[in-house]
Amino acid sequence: MNYQMIGYVNGRILLTEAALLALPMVVALLYGESAVPFLIPIAALVLTGLALSFRQPKRTALYARDGLAVVALAWIAVSAFGAVPFVLSGDIPSYVDAFFETVSGFTTTGASILTAVEPLSRGGLFWRSFTHWVGGMGVLVFVMAILPMSDGHGMHLLRAEVPGPSVGKLVSRMSDTAKILYGIYFVMTVIEIVLLLLGGMPLFDSCIHAFGSAGTGGFSCRNLSVGAYNSPYFDIVIGIFMLLFGVNFNLYYFLLIRRFRDVFHSEELRSYLLIVTAAVVAIAVDIVHIYGSAATSLRHAFFQVSSIITTTGYSSVDFNTWPTFSKAILVVLMFVGACAGSTGGGIKVARVVILIKASYGDMRRMLHPNAVSTVRFEGKPLTDRNLRSVHLFLTVYILVFTVSFLLLSLEQFDLITTFTALTACINNIGPGLELVGPMGNFAAFSPWSKLLLSFNMLVGRLEIFPTLLLFAPSIWKRRLLSRKIAP
Amino acid sequence: MNYQMIGYVNGRILLTEAALLALPMVVALLYGESAVPFLIPIAALVLTGLALSFRQPKRTALYARDGLAVVALAWIAVSAFGAVPFVLSGDIPSYVDAFFETVSGFTTTGASILTAVEPLSRGGLFWRSFTHWVGGMGVLVFVMAILPMSDGHGMHLLRAEVPGPSVGKLVSRMSDTAKILYGIYFVMTVIEIVLLLLGGMPLFDSCIHAFGSAGTGGFSCRNLSVGAYNSPYFDIVIGIFMLLFGVNFNLYYFLLIRRFRDVFHSEELRSYLLIVTAAVVAIAVDIVHIYGSAATSLRHAFFQVSSIITTTGYSSVDFNTWPTFSKAILVVLMFVGACAGSTGGGIKVARVVILIKASYGDMRRMLHPNAVSTVRFEGKPLTDRNLRSVHLFLTVYILVFTVSFLLLSLEQFDLITTFTALTACINNIGPGLELVGPMGNFAAFSPWSKLLLSFNMLVGRLEIFPTLLLFAPSIWKRRLLSRKIAP
Repeated sequence: MNYQMIGYVNGRILLTEAALLALPMVVALLYGESAVPFLIPIAALVLTGLALSFRQPKRTALYARDGLAVVALAWIAVSAFGAVPFVLSGDIPSYVDAFFETVSGFTTTGASILTAVEPLSRGGLFWRSFTHWVGGMGVLVFVMAILPMSDGHGMHLLRAEVPGPSVGKLVSRMSDTAKILYGIYFVMTVIEIVLLLLGGMPLFDSCIHAFGSAGTGGFSCRNLSVGAYNSPYFDIVIGIFMLLFGVNFNLYYFLLIRRFRDVFHSEELRSYLLIVTAAVVAIAVDIVHIYGSAATSLRHAFFQVSSIITTTGYSSVDFNTWPTFSKAILVVLMFVGACAGSTGGGIKVARVVILIKASYGDMRRMLHPNAVSTVRFEGKPLTDRNLRSVHLFLTVYILVFTVSFLLLSLEQFDLITTFTALTACINNIGPGLELVGPMGNFAAFSPWSKLLLSFNMLVGRLEIFPTLLLFAPSIWKRRLLSRKIAP
Repeated sequence: MNYQMIGYVNGRILLTEAALLALPMVVALLYGESAVPFLIPIAALVLTGLALSFRQPKRTALYARDGLAVVALAWIAVSAFGAVPFVLSGDIPSYVDAFFETVSGFTTTGASILTAVEPLSRGGLFWRSFTHWVGGMGVLVFVMAILPMSDGHGMHLLRAEVPGPSVGKLVSRMSDTAKILYGIYFVMTVIEIVLLLLGGMPLFDSCIHAFGSAGTGGFSCRNLSVGAYNSPYFDIVIGIFMLLFGVNFNLYYFLLIRRFRDVFHSEELRSYLLIVTAAVVAIAVDIVHIYGSAATSLRHAFFQVSSIITTTGYSSVDFNTWPTFSKAILVVLMFVGACAGSTGGGIKVARVVILIKASYGDMRRMLHPNAVSTVRFEGKPLTDRNLRSVHLFLTVYILVFTVSFLLLSLEQFDLITTFTALTACINNIGPGLELVGPMGNFAAFSPWSKLLLSFNMLVGRLEIFPTLLLFAPSIWKRRLLSRKIAP
């Protein structure tokens, strides 16, 4: 492990966070609130950041496992510092609660320990939602976009941070890829803000909900979430934008460079839209007796499906009161998640499609042992190595889920609360069902469970391995330093 | 596909079932009940069986896929015929209900549509539990044990019917292997009957509960299951025997031929005992406030853990009223299941151990890309092919579970009932939680759902592929017959 380089990169990340905190501080000042809750962590971040990144190490090589360690440590560090403003402003007096809320923000989960969000300070509310926006596309991708970094290092970091079974560069230079991604992201967010403003939503609220949908996070500035506005227009705008932010960003780049064929032939995009359509229709039929009109049922079904499959977690109504069939569909969508390379969480549509196609291929071989057939995904043959890594992901995901489920059940809440609280955290959704339903919150959990759920949010956002490998004893052994390992 | 041979083998299986039905008929006569409900299906079985197996086909070769088809069709056929006595005797007037109950019997699930079992006829009760005993070790293994069959055919049948990731012959001749397995099974069942008799249980009840624990089925002749006797002695005897029948039967053969080393070094056996011990201790601590004494808590915890991990489904108390942590442990054990090559269901301890070890190995390789490490299971290196088939099993298991879950949720029961009803059926356990808890039953489900759950019981007992492949269009195409396929 290249500990010096890991420290150096983390130092630069902390300096970036200090800069990011300036924005909510300005918001606080505009609303006549104190700047102190932001100034203190900014000072702490600058000092720590400078201490860590004062001198660039001689050996700058970062291998795959260094990349994993950088990413995991960076996400924990930015959350640990990012929680401070909430404590200092008095918005969230308990540090563990504030840490949970900040991890929930950066991982774009949107699970909250707050019983009411409306009493929060404006600066606090803004920072809380801004973490969604930064965390959605990635803390390190952001750093790469604004700071030059040699390509060999960037690739491992991008691989460890960007969700999905495979990550490619869009353009030859890593930092240009990061800039393109953040550029598209920024423009789409601005368009959503403008559309919300046009519908009459205040600027502050528009920013909050655009951040929440862009990052597929789900924090709102209203207790009743998007349902508080009771506006079909907002439901539709936010519903569509959530769905758009759940698409692989590479496709938007292809649109920009007029490679339309690649977009329309994307197997993942087609599967994603197919799942969404099927779920919306099934739920709309199931809930039409509640809302009377087909239009209202379709709207609520669309909003909730879009919110859940993209793992955003906004709600236009309390879907905890829906019939079991609709709830069952939502629970399944919680696991499916959005597209790879989007800001959404979950297992990802690409992995689900790969698993189904590979299983179908293997079963065909049982019937026709001599038939030669290759399973293809997105036009390319699926290698055994690709498939093995998807299977590994699924297995470890299930193992982490099972152990966490047993630990969380020690709280002795009902099984649905326990199961969906964990589901909502590991898939970065936010609300679950029952106690943690769209009208509930995570306040009732003990500090230990909040840390466990924070761990699961990081596991979900970083796709398991970076977070899990922090527990490997060998990562902490100096001995590794002296071992020669080929690049 | 060798349709003639598939029909021929199925014919012999139906003739065997006719012979098996003679036993409950004798019981019925002993209790002064009518023999007609058994005579009619016996006659039907003999006629159909003879028609199918009148002449042995010239081409007797059975390939892997033929084996899968034979097994799937045989299990459906014996259940379809086996349901008839319940309808004729009036024990279960609806044929769909009787079919569900019979599938539940043969697959050793133990899920029941009966709201009370005590009013049933003696002959019906005996047949219901006897299906557990036959289904536990396998309908086809039974046929192989009593009828000579060439080895090449037997192996594919055994592979398709005996649970677990890998199946080996104990001795060179297949039919001898089947005889040894059924011999051990028979002797252990007799010992359990004797021990229950010694404790003062009536002979009839002793047979019922010995069949139920030997097959890891779970049907009882008492409404309150084993709890009705309120006897620590019975709890302990049945608890221990359930655990014993959840062990790979190969190990008992090794004991017989004094290969003790193979038994004590069995990785699966050690893992199984470790899981049981940990679960018993954790649950006992969690429920001690309910039962007061540590001994009673340990006894109930042991009985329930043994019953659930072996997928038997007997209950000594209503564990639906236990705290969430205990219920969460039981739900996890429902999926883990018993050892491969036992009469139990579930994913199997062997597969769980393989998945964990392989994932650990793959994650190690992320940290040390150049380290050479082979994952071993039971002393042998795990090949990519082995692992691929375990991954395939897990993936298809999840897919079947998810689709069934969505279909079953259309019943609009609560999510826990829906989830655990399916869990209890696909893992061949019997009771779940809430409406289908140990004191509940499956009566409330619609006929469609009962068929869906019957399908899931078969999927679980036959380890997915035989049942699923019946849906492959190519299995029904004559074209396959003319294709030349190497053996």
